[in-house]
Amino acid sequence: MSDRRATIGVVEESTAKRSSRDAIFAATIALFSERGYPSTSMRDIASAVGLLPGSLYVHISSKEQLLADIVETGIDRFMVACREAIEAEKTPAARFRALIHAHMALIAEDPEHVRVALHQWKYLTGASRTDVMDKRREYEGIFQTLIADGIAKGEFSDKLNPRIAVLTVIGTLNWTSEWFHGDGPETADDVADDIADVLLSGLSA
Amino acid sequence: MSDRRATIGVVEESTAKRSSRDAIFAATIALFSERGYPSTSMRDIASAVGLLPGSLYVHISSKEQLLADIVETGIDRFMVACREAIEAEKTPAARFRALIHAHMALIAEDPEHVRVALHQWKYLTGASRTDVMDKRREYEGIFQTLIADGIAKGEFSDKLNPRIAVLTVIGTLNWTSEWFHGDGPETADDVADDIADVLLSGLSA
Repeated sequence: MSDRRATIGVVEESTAKRSSRDAIFAATIALFSERGYPSTSMRDIASAVGLLPGSLYVHISSKEQLLADIVETGIDRFMVACREAIEAEKTPAARFRALIHAHMALIAEDPEHVRVALHQWKYLTGASRTDVMDKRREYEGIFQTLIADGIAKGEFSDKLNPRIAVLTVIGTLNWTSEWFHGDGPETADDVADDIADVLLSGLSA
Repeated sequence: MSDRRATIGVVEESTAKRSSRDAIFAATIALFSERGYPSTSMRDIASAVGLLPGSLYVHISSKEQLLADIVETGIDRFMVACREAIEAEKTPAARFRALIHAHMALIAEDPEHVRVALHQWKYLTGASRTDVMDKRREYEGIFQTLIADGIAKGEFSDKLNPRIAVLTVIGTLNWTSEWFHGDGPETADDVADDIADVLLSGLSA
């Protein structure tokens, strides 16, 4: 009986810890997004979640580690969603369209998290910075592979610079977090279809 | 003679003031770009240009006014360059290509200024914020007019969503300030041509 209670105790503590960590994550994303990483103190974060500054360290080791976790989780979500989208389709063009839908769904879900992941990773130093740069390259690699595959299969044009094509697509998608707020007439899926049309067909008639 | 000296004195003072102001602008852009607006103090700016904090106020009225000036100058440079590029060409596609060249030339010239103008205007409040938002809309308007003109002349596709086409172009161009450092094998003009090819022709073969 005492054993069982102890086990339940541990489970409850771990659930509580996870929910505190989630609350810290959410509050920190809001603060980093609004003020930026350098202007957000551990005291600001503690105060936003109703903890004493010292108690924060039960959940996180440092402000930079928190930024690293937020950025890495952000990129990981994109990578998982993009890989699932690509696996769900067969042709390069269908995969490309699915990938844009997956991207827009994540932007619609949590634009602040996306903006922090896109812009504030620059404040990371040392190993976390290297890890994030590796992850960003891995994410770009998904687009590079897809476009190279499309060219190899004759579905995408071989007259374009593939590196610039990848950066055009990524630039367009990353910029959506600046203007898509989900409050316009178009849903994230509408926007995704329109973006895919522009990028696949080009402006020329 | 004394009149002439007085006049020269005024001219010299005004040139010195302008060059101090230019130095303050350059140092502030570097600081805002590196640390962000909220984490840069007037003391940091003064120290970067070798002035006492109090002497800064001879040249600028506040940190926010300085940000407003930097952002507005940044957008103005884009507007002037884009309008000149458009006027220099006749057809929508040639204008579109010229506009991308003009954009890349400015990015290559001063990427830090561009990044501050693109991302840190969000810290502005009140009238400067409204002014900048108006200017951003005016800048977007140049692209909207060009794309609408291209559709009207049958040179651009009428099957695309023109609003999303504009945001795709602007997203691509704005994102170049994140990755173009001028140290790769391609010049700003090479990149501009490749981007124009992708946006005009699309990925599809």
